[in-house]
Amino acid sequence: MNIDVILVAQDAGSDMVSGKSAVVIDVLRATSTMSTALANGCSAIYAVTSPERAFALARTFAPGSFLIGGERGGLRVEGFDLGNSPREYTRQVVDGKKIIMTTTNGTLAISNCACAAQVFICSLLNAQSVAERVAQEVNDVVIVCSGTEGVFTLEDAYCAGLVAEIVFRINPSAHMSDMANACRIIYRAYSASPVELMDLAEHGQKLRRIGFGEDIEYCSRLNMLKVVPVLKGDVITLEGR
Amino acid sequence: MNIDVILVAQDAGSDMVSGKSAVVIDVLRATSTMSTALANGCSAIYAVTSPERAFALARTFAPGSFLIGGERGGLRVEGFDLGNSPREYTRQVVDGKKIIMTTTNGTLAISNCACAAQVFICSLLNAQSVAERVAQEVNDVVIVCSGTEGVFTLEDAYCAGLVAEIVFRINPSAHMSDMANACRIIYRAYSASPVELMDLAEHGQKLRRIGFGEDIEYCSRLNMLKVVPVLKGDVITLEGR
Repeated sequence: MNIDVILVAQDAGSDMVSGKSAVVIDVLRATSTMSTALANGCSAIYAVTSPERAFALARTFAPGSFLIGGERGGLRVEGFDLGNSPREYTRQVVDGKKIIMTTTNGTLAISNCACAAQVFICSLLNAQSVAERVAQEVNDVVIVCSGTEGVFTLEDAYCAGLVAEIVFRINPSAHMSDMANACRIIYRAYSASPVELMDLAEHGQKLRRIGFGEDIEYCSRLNMLKVVPVLKGDVITLEGR
Repeated sequence: MNIDVILVAQDAGSDMVSGKSAVVIDVLRATSTMSTALANGCSAIYAVTSPERAFALARTFAPGSFLIGGERGGLRVEGFDLGNSPREYTRQVVDGKKIIMTTTNGTLAISNCACAAQVFICSLLNAQSVAERVAQEVNDVVIVCSGTEGVFTLEDAYCAGLVAEIVFRINPSAHMSDMANACRIIYRAYSASPVELMDLAEHGQKLRRIGFGEDIEYCSRLNMLKVVPVLKGDVITLEGR
């Protein structure tokens, strides 16, 4: 098994992901939010690439059966029920609901991975569960960091490193690309201090500035959620449900 | 001053480097070889992007005044005087000579940086001298890793991290991009063991396989050469000479 890492959503071309198992990461905050929502009973997430598509899809669902969430510029989109803070997606709010989501980077990365053999949704919260699942794969694995608007983000690379590190512990014969090893080095350097890593990262600093400091603390809780969200068609659900 | 890092030569578009001070890195082995040649008395290096251009340029120089060096697939090109091993470029061989060089990745990175305000040639051997020079700049700095055929290489990122780390120590107000910080983390994790880092890197492993293990040891000698090679027009010389 080969493990490689793509650093930004825009680089996840079909030649890079097709036929592989893709692990999509947007630590701050799309995949943290999706993992949280599904762990709290949300029945399915529809990741779409624009607010317009979110509203159009909403018209096909029964009123009361769904919520619309996501962000542009880090803030809730006008007319949406929820923003992109995972702390909004409590059991009380999302249990039994479908959620339509669009975010600047994470939903683009997911959309670009649609041609992969399998797509797993991963954050620091559920990295252990996803990595344990991925280590059982026979396919090559490509870890797709969302980045932010085409630019590398440190926190996604850190999460990629955590996934690669766990896979390597389970399967030491897995072949790591230089980028996978680079991410493992980044993870190991901050394995005990994820919040410190987030505060070094530009996106983490920006979220603190716009008032989402508590999201940083929440999204830094390594391996807290035992969920493996998977994309099937255009819907994200928990595997086996 | 902003410090950013580009991971592969192919990404060094004019929008990324123009007007900035560019630091070009190809640890294994082009920039290590160039730094060594200039430290050993080579008068000027002409970096060209193909063997054909190397031979064409050679016809314009007086016989005996120059050498042609470089590689394809890691090996000396037929008809060249020298390969790409820095250990070939001894004082005895290169003193007073012009050298025409072409390599797979390093000379492409240099060529792509021609529109930068300044271009410095950097390897682990001379990173300290280049970083001290760059820290005096007012321009933004872009560190351009050559990579290998469009793919990220760990050893170039490590060298980029060493440069960024030294600049940061001299000028703590320099703003580091997430990628600059990622490279600093990689450097710090292996600051005492560069050879170990090289042996983790795919390109390092390949060089050992094809018989250039001693080049790994040589190219890992941090800050051994006190030279600052600069590109002016299409010629690389030592600054101030």
